[in-house]
Amino acid sequence: MVIPLPSSRDKLLLTPGPLTTSLSVKQAMLHDAGSWHFEFNELVRTIRERLLTLAALSRDSGYECILLQGSGTFGVEAVFATCVPPNGKVAVLANGAYGERMLLMLQYAKIDHVVLRTPEDTPNDPGALDRLLAADKAVTHVAIIHCETTTGILNPITEVGQIVIRHGRSYIVDAMSSFAAIPIDFAAAGIEYLISSANKCIEGVPGFSFVIAHRAALLACDGYARSLSLDLLGQLKGFEKNGQFRYTPPTHSILAFREALDELDKEGGVMARGARYQRNHKVLVEGMKKFGFRVYLDPKLQSYIITSFYFPKDPKFTFNDFYHRLSDKGFIIYPGKISQADTFRIGSIGRIFESDIRGLLAAVAETIHEMGIKIR
Amino acid sequence: MVIPLPSSRDKLLLTPGPLTTSLSVKQAMLHDAGSWHFEFNELVRTIRERLLTLAALSRDSGYECILLQGSGTFGVEAVFATCVPPNGKVAVLANGAYGERMLLMLQYAKIDHVVLRTPEDTPNDPGALDRLLAADKAVTHVAIIHCETTTGILNPITEVGQIVIRHGRSYIVDAMSSFAAIPIDFAAAGIEYLISSANKCIEGVPGFSFVIAHRAALLACDGYARSLSLDLLGQLKGFEKNGQFRYTPPTHSILAFREALDELDKEGGVMARGARYQRNHKVLVEGMKKFGFRVYLDPKLQSYIITSFYFPKDPKFTFNDFYHRLSDKGFIIYPGKISQADTFRIGSIGRIFESDIRGLLAAVAETIHEMGIKIR
Repeated sequence: MVIPLPSSRDKLLLTPGPLTTSLSVKQAMLHDAGSWHFEFNELVRTIRERLLTLAALSRDSGYECILLQGSGTFGVEAVFATCVPPNGKVAVLANGAYGERMLLMLQYAKIDHVVLRTPEDTPNDPGALDRLLAADKAVTHVAIIHCETTTGILNPITEVGQIVIRHGRSYIVDAMSSFAAIPIDFAAAGIEYLISSANKCIEGVPGFSFVIAHRAALLACDGYARSLSLDLLGQLKGFEKNGQFRYTPPTHSILAFREALDELDKEGGVMARGARYQRNHKVLVEGMKKFGFRVYLDPKLQSYIITSFYFPKDPKFTFNDFYHRLSDKGFIIYPGKISQADTFRIGSIGRIFESDIRGLLAAVAETIHEMGIKIR
Repeated sequence: MVIPLPSSRDKLLLTPGPLTTSLSVKQAMLHDAGSWHFEFNELVRTIRERLLTLAALSRDSGYECILLQGSGTFGVEAVFATCVPPNGKVAVLANGAYGERMLLMLQYAKIDHVVLRTPEDTPNDPGALDRLLAADKAVTHVAIIHCETTTGILNPITEVGQIVIRHGRSYIVDAMSSFAAIPIDFAAAGIEYLISSANKCIEGVPGFSFVIAHRAALLACDGYARSLSLDLLGQLKGFEKNGQFRYTPPTHSILAFREALDELDKEGGVMARGARYQRNHKVLVEGMKKFGFRVYLDPKLQSYIITSFYFPKDPKFTFNDFYHRLSDKGFIIYPGKISQADTFRIGSIGRIFESDIRGLLAAVAETIHEMGIKIR
């Protein structure tokens, strides 16, 4: 791997993450912090508080933020492993790979579950959930993906949450790719557990996920945990006992995260960040459409996080060639993950601005020309 | 937390980790790598190979190296969660907190287990294990901690391993704090699974652990895994399928790790690094003894990784005061973890040289004077 000098620019990551981050976020990692040291513990405490603020939750809202080592998947699995009682049952709303991954976690943990699938281009169906919960009293938890990055579709977490509330079940929201870029109303949706990750819309570097959990709900899960490392309640108790992670934290990722939170504040918070991503997405889609690319999703369902485009029909198009040519020009896009169509994906999140998207579009134009492909 | 400029120096971490790393290791993190990108996959492949080389295992040795997101604890738990069959039973050799943590993992996972405890100042007892394995045919796996950093004691992994071989059981070695600083003979000890971490003697930054596993043994564990995130075999299959981590890797930690491996090579490898740590330890113990501090362990049992010192008997000594005064002088030490005695710990590992230890000793002298304590 040829690494450019810090003064030159890395290839831009137009992916679902890890993302392009600011140089100052990365520079915050030029330090070694002691994981037992009081200054580091204080930093962890403030980060946990700031994430609640970012979620528009006040100090007396009854929520806690728990950081957990590993990727976002570890955070989602930690919620299941810690919070579902031995005789619990989880209803998963799935319309993509991340919903399917939840099912896999539940299978591994031998937790009873049921799935409500919709096609990958169709949002989760609140009506079907309503009927399911009315019929199946054994379901204790409902789990949903806010932005399913398999396609970029946005699922109706508030509408679904109101059904979950009405049926008196627990609600788990995977907001990995949406948190901090799309406002989320915890109270209206009745969210008990929300999971996101350091390296998504907060624009930190990977190393940990975080769970925003209703304190009373989590405390009631004592004794359920199926894994020591993934014991979310144990992790909370650790923070509350001595301010520390129970096991070695990714200290450098956490230093970077503080800087990322500062930069999010400076940008103007969730609304401003969301507006930048929305602008990126709009410029991207308009430009790609001009070339003749077709967007996979109905625009009404499409998030401004990541966008799936159909492969052109021209047989001269191969994703591998397209990908490498864009990479050579400094832009890294992402393969598709959709089972029902041949697509590739381009992300709008991370330290990416409209000018970067315009740069990408110029590179796409050049690449189409080089490959001699017809898009339409 | 006041962060010094990159040009000034962070406080030295004389702890069991995360450790002080070189500036160049940290500077390797000033890049954003795409986790799906072929260059990054190639980097991961070479790191996995280089770790086998570091373990003195040839390509045809039948071993694989698997990187796993999270701290070292996640790696140890992943081995149990993946490799112990449903009706398996683990014998744990425990003489400190990390052995006890293994027991806790097994309890969480509801895996049958038995413990052979020795006091914290006494190595694991191979004879007792021999008798246990002869008597208890249900035991499928034996687990041991190489350097138990609770005290700094070194356990007899080869002697124990030969007993495990004779009884035909599987052998799991937690070499978190010893790997890359103390040579380990996989064949002589019959190690099936060895776990270590990025932020220990290789002097990388935290973010992932790694497991060196006997390939055939691991492949035979298909279907046992109790957790998706911690499924070590799934992780290996992911690397072999497309070169990728199954879930978001800590890309920056991995970039730092490559640089750390380069610097370990430049230093002269495991023997040279071990010699530096040994020198650090020797200078530390000689200096502390001159002040009157007493070492907890018999020198014959003591590793050169970390050293436990008894608290002075003077009632004017408090660890908190001692710790803060040393911190103010730029040195971060570690509290004790021993249940049977009041101790503190000082590590000899990380980007620490004899001159740093001499600096620490000067700071200790000054601190003793400030506190007006008698050590003897």
